[in-house]
Amino acid sequence: MAVAVAGLGYWGPNLARNFDELGALVALCELDPALRERYAARYPQARMYGDFDELLADDGVDAVVIATPVPTHYALARSALAAGRHVLVEKPPAMRSGEIDELVATAAERDLVLMPGHLLLYHPGVRKLKSLIDSGDLGEVLCVYGNRQNLGIVRTNENALWSLGVHDLSVILYLLDEEPDACVAHGRDFLTEGVEDVVFCYLRFPSGKIAHMHLSWLDPHKMRKITVVGREKMVVFDDMELDRKVTVYEKAPWKRTDSYGEWQTRSGDISIPKIPTDEPLKLECQEFLRLVAGEGDRTKVAEDGARVVRALDRLTESLRER
Amino acid sequence: MAVAVAGLGYWGPNLARNFDELGALVALCELDPALRERYAARYPQARMYGDFDELLADDGVDAVVIATPVPTHYALARSALAAGRHVLVEKPPAMRSGEIDELVATAAERDLVLMPGHLLLYHPGVRKLKSLIDSGDLGEVLCVYGNRQNLGIVRTNENALWSLGVHDLSVILYLLDEEPDACVAHGRDFLTEGVEDVVFCYLRFPSGKIAHMHLSWLDPHKMRKITVVGREKMVVFDDMELDRKVTVYEKAPWKRTDSYGEWQTRSGDISIPKIPTDEPLKLECQEFLRLVAGEGDRTKVAEDGARVVRALDRLTESLRER
Amino acid sequence: MAVAVAGLGYWGPNLARNFDELGALVALCELDPALRERYAARYPQARMYGDFDELLADDGVDAVVIATPVPTHYALARSALAAGRHVLVEKPPAMRSGEIDELVATAAERDLVLMPGHLLLYHPGVRKLKSLIDSGDLGEVLCVYGNRQNLGIVRTNENALWSLGVHDLSVILYLLDEEPDACVAHGRDFLTEGVEDVVFCYLRFPSGKIAHMHLSWLDPHKMRKITVVGREKMVVFDDMELDRKVTVYEKAPWKRTDSYGEWQTRSGDISIPKIPTDEPLKLECQEFLRLVAGEGDRTKVAEDGARVVRALDRLTESLRER
Amino acid sequence: MAVAVAGLGYWGPNLARNFDELGALVALCELDPALRERYAARYPQARMYGDFDELLADDGVDAVVIATPVPTHYALARSALAAGRHVLVEKPPAMRSGEIDELVATAAERDLVLMPGHLLLYHPGVRKLKSLIDSGDLGEVLCVYGNRQNLGIVRTNENALWSLGVHDLSVILYLLDEEPDACVAHGRDFLTEGVEDVVFCYLRFPSGKIAHMHLSWLDPHKMRKITVVGREKMVVFDDMELDRKVTVYEKAPWKRTDSYGEWQTRSGDISIPKIPTDEPLKLECQEFLRLVAGEGDRTKVAEDGARVVRALDRLTESLRER
Repeated sequence: MAVAVAGLGYWGPNLARNFDELGALVALCELDPALRERYAARYPQARMYGDFDELLADDGVDAVVIATPVPTHYALARSALAAGRHVLVEKPPAMRSGEIDELVATAAERDLVLMPGHLLLYHPGVRKLKSLIDSGDLGEVLCVYGNRQNLGIVRTNENALWSLGVHDLSVILYLLDEEPDACVAHGRDFLTEGVEDVVFCYLRFPSGKIAHMHLSWLDPHKMRKITVVGREKMVVFDDMELDRKVTVYEKAPWKRTDSYGEWQTRSGDISIPKIPTDEPLKLECQEFLRLVAGEGDRTKVAEDGARVVRALDRLTESLRER
Repeated sequence: MAVAVAGLGYWGPNLARNFDELGALVALCELDPALRERYAARYPQARMYGDFDELLADDGVDAVVIATPVPTHYALARSALAAGRHVLVEKPPAMRSGEIDELVATAAERDLVLMPGHLLLYHPGVRKLKSLIDSGDLGEVLCVYGNRQNLGIVRTNENALWSLGVHDLSVILYLLDEEPDACVAHGRDFLTEGVEDVVFCYLRFPSGKIAHMHLSWLDPHKMRKITVVGREKMVVFDDMELDRKVTVYEKAPWKRTDSYGEWQTRSGDISIPKIPTDEPLKLECQEFLRLVAGEGDRTKVAEDGARVVRALDRLTESLRER
Repeated sequence: MAVAVAGLGYWGPNLARNFDELGALVALCELDPALRERYAARYPQARMYGDFDELLADDGVDAVVIATPVPTHYALARSALAAGRHVLVEKPPAMRSGEIDELVATAAERDLVLMPGHLLLYHPGVRKLKSLIDSGDLGEVLCVYGNRQNLGIVRTNENALWSLGVHDLSVILYLLDEEPDACVAHGRDFLTEGVEDVVFCYLRFPSGKIAHMHLSWLDPHKMRKITVVGREKMVVFDDMELDRKVTVYEKAPWKRTDSYGEWQTRSGDISIPKIPTDEPLKLECQEFLRLVAGEGDRTKVAEDGARVVRALDRLTESLRER
Repeated sequence: MAVAVAGLGYWGPNLARNFDELGALVALCELDPALRERYAARYPQARMYGDFDELLADDGVDAVVIATPVPTHYALARSALAAGRHVLVEKPPAMRSGEIDELVATAAERDLVLMPGHLLLYHPGVRKLKSLIDSGDLGEVLCVYGNRQNLGIVRTNENALWSLGVHDLSVILYLLDEEPDACVAHGRDFLTEGVEDVVFCYLRFPSGKIAHMHLSWLDPHKMRKITVVGREKMVVFDDMELDRKVTVYEKAPWKRTDSYGEWQTRSGDISIPKIPTDEPLKLECQEFLRLVAGEGDRTKVAEDGARVVRALDRLTESLRER
C-alpha cells in the first residue's frame, strides 16, 4: 500500500508519522517551501511535491490523505477520487450536503475508499460505548448528549458547531447509527460577527431517540464528554479523565409493580472498565489501510461520513434561521 | 404580623416551622385530618382549619402562605388576595400567563404582597452571583446556563420543565433581570406519555444575552449548577458542593492588539469566596415578613414571579409544537 | 429488654432516640436539670434520674448506655457492671489498658455484655471492606491506612489521637483482627500545650501487615478515609462521598514470569458497589440488643473493644516519649 | 559555557536536549554503543565519548552533567570535581552522608558548582509555595507533609524512600530551610526482600515544625502532593492537577477572645493562583548555567543538596532499626 499525505501544517505531520510507522508513506505534498524542506529531511524516502496535481500524477501512489485547510477538502478529495485514488480526508470532508453526496457517489462508482478522519470513532473509550449499546447492556437507548466546552482554539473562520460539534456529532451518529429527522441549533456570535461561539443542538431520530450537544469555547469548565442514557444503564465517556474514561451506572427508571404505576429511580453499582490505551490515530490509519486493502465495508464508512456532513449542514441552516 | 400556612403535606411543614421560629405563625390549614392532628400538637398556639374559606374568614390572619398541590395554587392565591390577604405562594404560583397576570393585577390593585416561593433566590450563593454581575466584575454577561439533572423525583403529573426548570428559570431571570424575546424548548416523554423527562430550553434576550437549561431526571450525573459567562470573568454556582458553592474564574476571551485581530483566551486565577451558610428558607420567610411590613419593593417581587410563569408558559408551548 | 441512657449532652440524645424507636427505652439519667426537663417531655414513658446510683437502683433496667463525658466512662461502666447491668459505653470506654482489662474481666465473670460504641464498625461501607477482605477477594492484605483530617472540633482536653484516631483504630483492628506488636506515634501540640493537634501512627502486626493513621484537625483537606492495600486488589472507604463510599481497584503488583523476576503494576477495572444506606447507629443499637438477648459473641465484642484501648494506650506512651 | 552530558539512558536525553536548546551542549558520554550511535546522529556537533575519563580529558568541557545509574553518581561526581569540572548530578548525588559531605567540601575548596538535579525545586508551583511561606502570608508554618503514592515504577534495587521520597524531601527541606533534628522512618518490604514498598517518614525540626512523608507504589490513589499548614493559611501543591496546581485555603485555628480560651477553626476564601507553565527542567538547566557563570549562591545549592542526602541517610538508618 502506497500512501501520500497532502498538507503538513497542523495535523498532517501526525498522519505522516503514523503512515510512515506503518510502512506505507511514499509521498508528501505541501505548498509551503519551509515545511517541505523540514519534512523532506525527516522522511527522505518519501517523494515531495509542492503541487497537488503533480502528486496525483504520481502513479506510485494508491491513496491520498488530505490534511489541508477545511475549505479545500471537498475540491481536493474530488480531484483525488477522479484520479482513481483512495481518500482519507480530514473532518469535515465537505461543507455542504450536495458536496459530500457527490463525493460518496463518485467513490461508490469507482469503488474507491472515501474515509473521513473522525478520530474519536477510533478511540477505545468510544468503541466501549458502542459495544455496550450494541450488546443490549444499556437497554433501549433514550438519549445521548455531548459536552465540548472550553477546549480548542477560539476561531474566527469556523464556528463552534463546525470546529467542536463535528467531533460529538460523528460519535452520536456512530452510536445511534440512524439519520436524524429533526436538527435544531441555537447559538450566538459574541466575539466575531457570524461565527457562533456558543451553540446548542437538538436532534430527534425516527426511533424516538434524542440527542443534544452543548458546544462552546467561552466556558469555565473544560469538558469533552459523551453521555448515553439507556433504559437499564447509563454510560459516560469523559475524555478529560486519565484512568476513568468510561463509567457505567446501573441507574434506571423502574416501575414498581406493587405501587400505583409510579416511576422510581433505582441506582446500583458503578463500574469503570479498564480501557486500552491504544492511540486512536494509529487505529484510524490502520483502518484506512485495511479498507484500501479490500477488507471491511468501505461503502458504510463513506455513507457514515456523509451523514455527519448532512446533519452539520442542516444544523447550520437552523442556526442561521434564528 | 400574623401568618397562616395552608397545606401541610410535603413542603408546608418547613414553612410553618420557619414562621413559628420568627414568631409569626397564628394559623394552619390542611385537608387531611391526620396531618391536622399531628401539627396541632406541634403548634398548640396556632388555630387549625380544615377548610381554606374558613381560614380566610379568620380576621386575625394578615398573610397566607400557600403550600398546597401545584394545580390549586392559582385559585387559592386568588381567593386569598380577594379576601385582602398578603400571599406567599409556592412555585409555580400559576400554570398560565393569563392567570399570573391576573394575580399580579389584583395584588397591585389592592396593594397586597404576592410573593412566589422561589427558594433559590434567597440562597447566599445565588446572591453572590447577582452581586458579582451587578458590580460589573464579570464584565458584560454573555450567557447563563443551568444544569439540573438526576435530582428530584420522577414525576408523572409534572414534566421536567415545570418540576426542575422552574428553579433555574427563576435564577436566570433574576440574574439577567430581563424578559426573554425568544423561548424555545425541546424534549421527550420517555416514561409517562405527555410528561417530558428530558428537556432542553434556549432563551434569547433583547440585550443579546442567551440562556440555556438542561433538565432531566434520567441522568447519571447529579447536577444542580448555574454557570455565568461574562466577558471578563466566569462564575459557577454548584449547589452539590459543600464548601465550594461559588467559583470565580478569571477566564476571558482577549483580543491581542499586536496580532491580526485574533481572539485568544486568557486564563488567570480561580477564587472560591466563602459563602455564608444561612438557610435560604429562613431568608425567604424574613423577606416575606419585610414586604408585608411595607419594606422593599412588593411590586417588583410580584412582577418577577409573573415573568417566570410567562417564560414557563411560552416554553411549554414551544415544547408542545414539536 | 429494658435500656437506660445515661448522659443527654452531645451524643446521648441520638442513642435515646434509637432505643426509643426500638421500643427498649425505659429510663434516662442526666445531671443537668434543664436537659432532664427537655427529655422528660420528649420521652414521657421513661423514668428520669439525676443520679447514676439511683439509676442503677432501678430494678426495671437490664442494660445501661453510657454517653457521659469521656473521663467518666470507666468508672460508670464499672459501677454498672458491678450492679449487674449490661453496658454499651461510648468510645473510648477507658483511657488505660489496666482499666479496660478490668472491665472486660468483670463482664466475663458476670457474663454481662460490655460493648464499646464504635459506630464505624456498623457502617455498611466498613462492613463491605470487611467482607471483601474475609472473602479473599483482595488477596493477602498488606497495609491499611486511615486519613482523618480537618474534621471534628479542635479540642483542648483530648488530643487528635484519642478524639479522631479512636475511629480509625477501631476499624483497622476490626479489619485485621489482630493485636499489633509495634505501636509508634509522632505528633505535635501546636495550639494547646500537651494536646497534640497532628498525630501520625504506625502499627506493625505479627502477620507482617502494617497500618498507619494520619490524624489532624489542622488541615486543609476534609478527609475520612480508610484504604486497604491487598496483594490482588485495593479498596478505599471514603466517608466524605455520598454515592461512592467504597471503591474497589483491580490494581496489583504482578511478577511477570517471562521477565527477569521484575515487578510491574497491573491495573484493571474499578468498581463502586452499591452500599446500603442503613443508619449505622441504628445497626449498633440493634446489635447491642441482640447481644443482651444472648445472641452473638459477647466475649469477642468486649475483647475487641479492649484491643482498641490497649493500642491507644501504647500509642499515647510512644507519643509522650518523643 | 561548554556542557557535557554523561549517561543517555532514561533521563539523560532530556538533559541533553535542554542544554542543546540553550546552546551549551558540546559533548556526550555513554557506555552503550547503540545509544552512542543514536545520539551522535541527533547531536552531530557534540563530541561523543564511551568512557568517562576520556570525557574528563576533553579540555573543551567546563561542566559535566551526570545522569548515569544512581550507584555511580558519587564516584563520577568526585572524578569530575577532581578534574576541575562543574557538576550537575542527578538525584541522589550520593547514598551516604560521608560521601556528600566530601563532595561538598571538594567543590567548595576548588570553587566549583555542585548542583543536585532536584527537578521539583524548579517547578513554578513549588516556587509559589516558597514565596507564600517567605512572604509571611501563611503565618508561622507548623507542618509540611508530602504524599507520593502509586507513581513511579516498582523498583527492586531502590526502595520507596530513595526512589519517591527524595522528591518530597528536597521540597520539604527547601521550604523549611532547616536541618531536621529527628528523622524517623517506618515501612515494609512486601515484594522484594530489603526493598521497602511502603514508607512513612516523620521529621522534627529545631524550630518545632514537623514534616511527614507517605511514600508507596502499592496504592490505589495516584498522588503527588505537598501540603503546608500555616497558622494563618494552608496551601496545597498538587502535581496531578492540570490547572489547579496550587490551592490556598484561608483556614486557620482561631482563639476567640470572648470565649473561654477555646480554639475554633475559621475557614474563609479559597484561591487558586495562576501558575506559569514553564518547564521545570529548562529552569533547572538555566539555573545550572547561571551558577557556572558565577551568578547566584553556589555554596548554598551544594549545601542544600547535602542536607537532603544526610536526611535520607538518617531515615534509612531509622528504617533499618525496626
